[in-house]
Amino acid sequence: MPKVVTFGEVMLRLSNPGYLRFGQARQFDATFGGGEANVAVSLANYGIDSHFVTRIPKNDIADMCTAELRSFGVNLDGVVYGGYRVGIYYLETGAMARGSKVVYDRAHSAMSEIRPGMVNWREVLKGAEWFHWTGITPALSQGAADTCLEAIKIANEMGVKVSCDLNYRKKLWQYGKSASEVMPELVAGCNLILGNEEDAEKEFGIKPEGFEGKPAGYFILFCYCGLAYLLAWGIMKALVPKYKPIES
Amino acid sequence: MPKVVTFGEVMLRLSNPGYLRFGQARQFDATFGGGEANVAVSLANYGIDSHFVTRIPKNDIADMCTAELRSFGVNLDGVVYGGYRVGIYYLETGAMARGSKVVYDRAHSAMSEIRPGMVNWREVLKGAEWFHWTGITPALSQGAADTCLEAIKIANEMGVKVSCDLNYRKKLWQYGKSASEVMPELVAGCNLILGNEEDAEKEFGIKPEGFEGKPAGYFILFCYCGLAYLLAWGIMKALVPKYKPIES
Amino acid sequence: MPKVVTFGEVMLRLSNPGYLRFGQARQFDATFGGGEANVAVSLANYGIDSHFVTRIPKNDIADMCTAELRSFGVNLDGVVYGGYRVGIYYLETGAMARGSKVVYDRAHSAMSEIRPGMVNWREVLKGAEWFHWTGITPALSQGAADTCLEAIKIANEMGVKVSCDLNYRKKLWQYGKSASEVMPELVAGCNLILGNEEDAEKEFGIKPEGFEGKPAGYFILFCYCGLAYLLAWGIMKALVPKYKPIES
Amino acid sequence: MPKVVTFGEVMLRLSNPGYLRFGQARQFDATFGGGEANVAVSLANYGIDSHFVTRIPKNDIADMCTAELRSFGVNLDGVVYGGYRVGIYYLETGAMARGSKVVYDRAHSAMSEIRPGMVNWREVLKGAEWFHWTGITPALSQGAADTCLEAIKIANEMGVKVSCDLNYRKKLWQYGKSASEVMPELVAGCNLILGNEEDAEKEFGIKPEGFEGKPAGYFILFCYCGLAYLLAWGIMKALVPKYKPIES
Amino acid sequence: MPKVVTFGEVMLRLSNPGYLRFGQARQFDATFGGGEANVAVSLANYGIDSHFVTRIPKNDIADMCTAELRSFGVNLDGVVYGGYRVGIYYLETGAMARGSKVVYDRAHSAMSEIRPGMVNWREVLKGAEWFHWTGITPALSQGAADTCLEAIKIANEMGVKVSCDLNYRKKLWQYGKSASEVMPELVAGCNLILGNEEDAEKEFGIKPEGFEGKPAGYFILFCYCGLAYLLAWGIMKALVPKYKPIES
Amino acid sequence: MPKVVTFGEVMLRLSNPGYLRFGQARQFDATFGGGEANVAVSLANYGIDSHFVTRIPKNDIADMCTAELRSFGVNLDGVVYGGYRVGIYYLETGAMARGSKVVYDRAHSAMSEIRPGMVNWREVLKGAEWFHWTGITPALSQGAADTCLEAIKIANEMGVKVSCDLNYRKKLWQYGKSASEVMPELVAGCNLILGNEEDAEKEFGIKPEGFEGKPAGYFILFCYCGLAYLLAWGIMKALVPKYKPIES
Repeated sequence: MPKVVTFGEVMLRLSNPGYLRFGQARQFDATFGGGEANVAVSLANYGIDSHFVTRIPKNDIADMCTAELRSFGVNLDGVVYGGYRVGIYYLETGAMARGSKVVYDRAHSAMSEIRPGMVNWREVLKGAEWFHWTGITPALSQGAADTCLEAIKIANEMGVKVSCDLNYRKKLWQYGKSASEVMPELVAGCNLILGNEEDAEKEFGIKPEGFEGKPAGYFILFCYCGLAYLLAWGIMKALVPKYKPIES
Repeated sequence: MPKVVTFGEVMLRLSNPGYLRFGQARQFDATFGGGEANVAVSLANYGIDSHFVTRIPKNDIADMCTAELRSFGVNLDGVVYGGYRVGIYYLETGAMARGSKVVYDRAHSAMSEIRPGMVNWREVLKGAEWFHWTGITPALSQGAADTCLEAIKIANEMGVKVSCDLNYRKKLWQYGKSASEVMPELVAGCNLILGNEEDAEKEFGIKPEGFEGKPAGYFILFCYCGLAYLLAWGIMKALVPKYKPIES
Repeated sequence: MPKVVTFGEVMLRLSNPGYLRFGQARQFDATFGGGEANVAVSLANYGIDSHFVTRIPKNDIADMCTAELRSFGVNLDGVVYGGYRVGIYYLETGAMARGSKVVYDRAHSAMSEIRPGMVNWREVLKGAEWFHWTGITPALSQGAADTCLEAIKIANEMGVKVSCDLNYRKKLWQYGKSASEVMPELVAGCNLILGNEEDAEKEFGIKPEGFEGKPAGYFILFCYCGLAYLLAWGIMKALVPKYKPIES
Repeated sequence: MPKVVTFGEVMLRLSNPGYLRFGQARQFDATFGGGEANVAVSLANYGIDSHFVTRIPKNDIADMCTAELRSFGVNLDGVVYGGYRVGIYYLETGAMARGSKVVYDRAHSAMSEIRPGMVNWREVLKGAEWFHWTGITPALSQGAADTCLEAIKIANEMGVKVSCDLNYRKKLWQYGKSASEVMPELVAGCNLILGNEEDAEKEFGIKPEGFEGKPAGYFILFCYCGLAYLLAWGIMKALVPKYKPIES
Repeated sequence: MPKVVTFGEVMLRLSNPGYLRFGQARQFDATFGGGEANVAVSLANYGIDSHFVTRIPKNDIADMCTAELRSFGVNLDGVVYGGYRVGIYYLETGAMARGSKVVYDRAHSAMSEIRPGMVNWREVLKGAEWFHWTGITPALSQGAADTCLEAIKIANEMGVKVSCDLNYRKKLWQYGKSASEVMPELVAGCNLILGNEEDAEKEFGIKPEGFEGKPAGYFILFCYCGLAYLLAWGIMKALVPKYKPIES
Repeated sequence: MPKVVTFGEVMLRLSNPGYLRFGQARQFDATFGGGEANVAVSLANYGIDSHFVTRIPKNDIADMCTAELRSFGVNLDGVVYGGYRVGIYYLETGAMARGSKVVYDRAHSAMSEIRPGMVNWREVLKGAEWFHWTGITPALSQGAADTCLEAIKIANEMGVKVSCDLNYRKKLWQYGKSASEVMPELVAGCNLILGNEEDAEKEFGIKPEGFEGKPAGYFILFCYCGLAYLLAWGIMKALVPKYKPIES
């Protein structure tokens, strides 16, 4: 089976049971997730040799996270252990007219403090056919953006194909640089890009109409539905042309 | 009823249900607590006009915390809203031979980023008979230590009695100063001090044998059981000599 | 902030978890509520100095109730302690074609046994701008109706504005008098009345068409949606013409 | 299998999950129980044709109760439906030094309002070998005491043996008569009495030392452990001398 | 009240709480059910003297099952104890676009190993007005089909009316015979048959158009909604023409 | 890290929450376990390259099982998919004087129907230093015993060391052979054996006193505590003489 590597942050999600509001709950359901980790899980479900790279601390909460990812068959050999905390988001699920609410507590996470040189990318990408990242990672911190660029460059050198889900998040990008300053160089090393009009506008200053794309070497695929499932399916189809799901 | 003010950090406690281990739980029970807040709750239970001062963010998780304290009848008029996060500790309750485990995630809490001038101490302490703090607060950060000193000095000026639970915590005191550098000046303004031998040794360099206490102006009461209940009882008895519990 | 006082019964609500039927549940979710208490909570959420008056026993179940109201920031200084029980209603939430079911067990509640003279209305209403009650309270018992009238008269004397949500409940009114015998005198002392056609017909014998209202001194506002939220908003706007919600 | 009839009140028990205190719980575990109903369940477990008689309302909460008793194989053909409420007790389970707490809300229960003539005792006791009651029932109300006496007399007439667990409860006996005024006549019709020194003293004014028992016709068995299990076992052994438990 | 007997398998249903997927749940909600047992429960709800016959093991899990049926007032005197296991089905409730999933683990259940002679049908059917079975039972095993035939023949001899819910299940019928080989003889002894076009086609090879029914002695009622409720209502109306529900 | 392979059955454990009895629970906590799987998990916790081999069906319940094992870092590449069911045991946890109860429903499990030739042992054992099995596996069925022997012989040929936890279970061994007929040949191929006096007596007819062990080639280690933890520690120490736990 082909090997795919995804890279990003994974957070602890603390959600109120059922439709309880924050003020009513005295329990939180605890799971872990993140855009790139979700892609890794979907790929593993399809039987791909799926690897996920992140930086998380060495403590019991982080161990809950790695156990959950491993239970889905994701290979975590490339994970870097360090830092002090797993980022958290609190979720209150909406009901009828009342919308869902999210409270973020992700600053100072181990992943946001990653720096180039921490991941042994040549080892991680050995034998891989594909490397996948999203626009969330360079939005976390300068160090995360630099590490992302480091990975893309090494992938390019090693002939590993690179994909990116642009995924513009206006609440991030707090470290002094804008998406449009950081993303173009990262995206230049990609073979497959997924995004929508907002991503294109915020990250590249390009309005979809009249959009001519960036100079040669890659193309933009506008997928209007950002589900991890679809993304996993897309990568998988590129990798395994004759793939058939085991059970549908 | 006499008015008492306590000051400190309150944290979100996320504990595994029952005796589950971290790796087994997919839920956390959520409550809020802290040494000084617990004293405020106990005092309110005894009918004292109990006020608690802290700094917490203005978000839904912090609102859960203030609602819980308010449900016990604690007055929160002096709370300062600001900062980004409520500190967290994760608790796995031990069973038989297996000890309990705590994972802290309290760095960068709103309370650790408090600074002198944020609390209007003259307003907060108006009409109070007693101000209570613990050795945990100055252990958080320079700003927290400075704010604690600010409060003690104003309480002294206003004739409000001051008590301190020394409560030495070796995992804290990470900001470049030791307890023995910071605590003596704070303790000098206290009327009632509670502690044990370890506190005395770590915070004042005094071994209990041969211990003669600090120079005049206050005395040390060594209470070997640090329960909030006992502390509340102690303060209450000092305040209301003829107090009788409503229902025993 | 302006002070508002609401007056009524608060009951223990025991509801089956999820969509379980009574025969399937072995647990009840426990909360507390009542029309007037809910208005007090909504007003407190808007920052109003909100007071709630009721009569409940001095036991642990009643303490659960006062703790819950206090957690929302409602002032309970006017609550009268006495009697033997908190009224209960059991709720089975409907699902699809199956309707919800309610079983009442509210007879002999502390509030239904309230009598004039038990509440110190002059103290409770001191400084208040508004007093709010509903048609549920006089439907409970002669004593509750008499106490309601007592409150309205004192409010009128003290210049406190009075509002009433008519809220006709046919299952109540069991103590030998009908709504149309009791309500007119109570309503005569109100500045703001909320109700719908059914209320007008059952409590005043007036059909909405051709409805000219009661003689001078007050007016009827027909609000067809009786939600506490709207009511709170209405009172608040009357009180604070320039009010703007803190966060929308 | 021999037929046994027990008679008494069955209450809804609402208990906090685990070791939570009343103020912490937002759920109650709901079960049903009562001394006489528990004996009926134990007898049914041993294969006896066990009947339970009580008075409960015709509503969904009472139906939960009858369903639970029926699930244990207890025959409820003699139950009388009427009245307005099932009595309740709230239970907070103690932990370590903290004792358990019970809050009763049983006044005005359907069973406390039972009156002679409501139960068709000749039908209920037809074919029965044994009738069992406890000192809790006549402690509820004059009507319950009268109905108990009615049952005992008819049992005596029909040659049905009668047993009583004296079970003195000082919190009951609120209706104007003392145990020592009511119990002797009831006990006079019994063939087997179970009790302890406190029961004997409070209900008959007899101190165990120097205790000579009541005049002939019955004897007092002092069983110091009042568990329903033991009682069921005792009745069963009297009924079925060669009884052997199906599975031990 | 008339006596009705139903006969079939009852299984343990283990379902994920809420909308959790199998991979997410660490708990199962446990209930018991089966088409014929559900009819018995509905009939008991209407006050019919409802009896259910099945074969289940003598162990604690089977006891949970009989207790649940008994709680609904179903008479289990005819149940045969033996065999090794209660059949199980695991249920994951669907949500929105995702369908529900069922995993069966019912092979080798006590009921599937029933054989003629195990049930004392003459005793079970004594005094009964009606006997009800479904097409699920003969689909389990040759022994279950033979026992079903045995029951029908004895019911016919004793003048007990017989009804059948055809209920074709293609996942069953694994023991070497097809529905069309087995069902006609069984159905020949029925007075009332419920089914739909699929049942008619799969079990009798008859397409609804041009459908003339089987030779005299019974008729086919095509009820397009197979709910136990409707079935119970149908049988009840046949039994008690003037029946009125106790409470509507 | 050295590679270790363990082989055996893994079952679904359905346990009542807390100390509830079977008759009280309406939920089961679901986990998966088995002696050999537990050793694999412990070894993985110590960082060993731990592989587990079993036979389980391809359905959602089996997938829950493999996900749980994978979450602990156990490699499942050697698992064989087939058969119809995962064995189950129901557990009621005892409390005080009341013992725990177990109800088994493990007959016809996929593992009990394993046959030689299903596992590719040469592939599975390639590079392994150790193969571990227990006396539970050959007690399941002739096929399981034969497959165990097949594995041991191939391990011997390949120079893989073999260990066995004798673990005599009298409730098993139902397929017509006794432990003493089957175990000696299996044990003859082992390098390390763990057991206690009962195992030695039931499986080899040897009483510990006067016990001289079996002829050369292996030795018996009597470990009186059969915990997976100790066993994992034993194997690990044999494999990695200088091993030190990462955190104690």
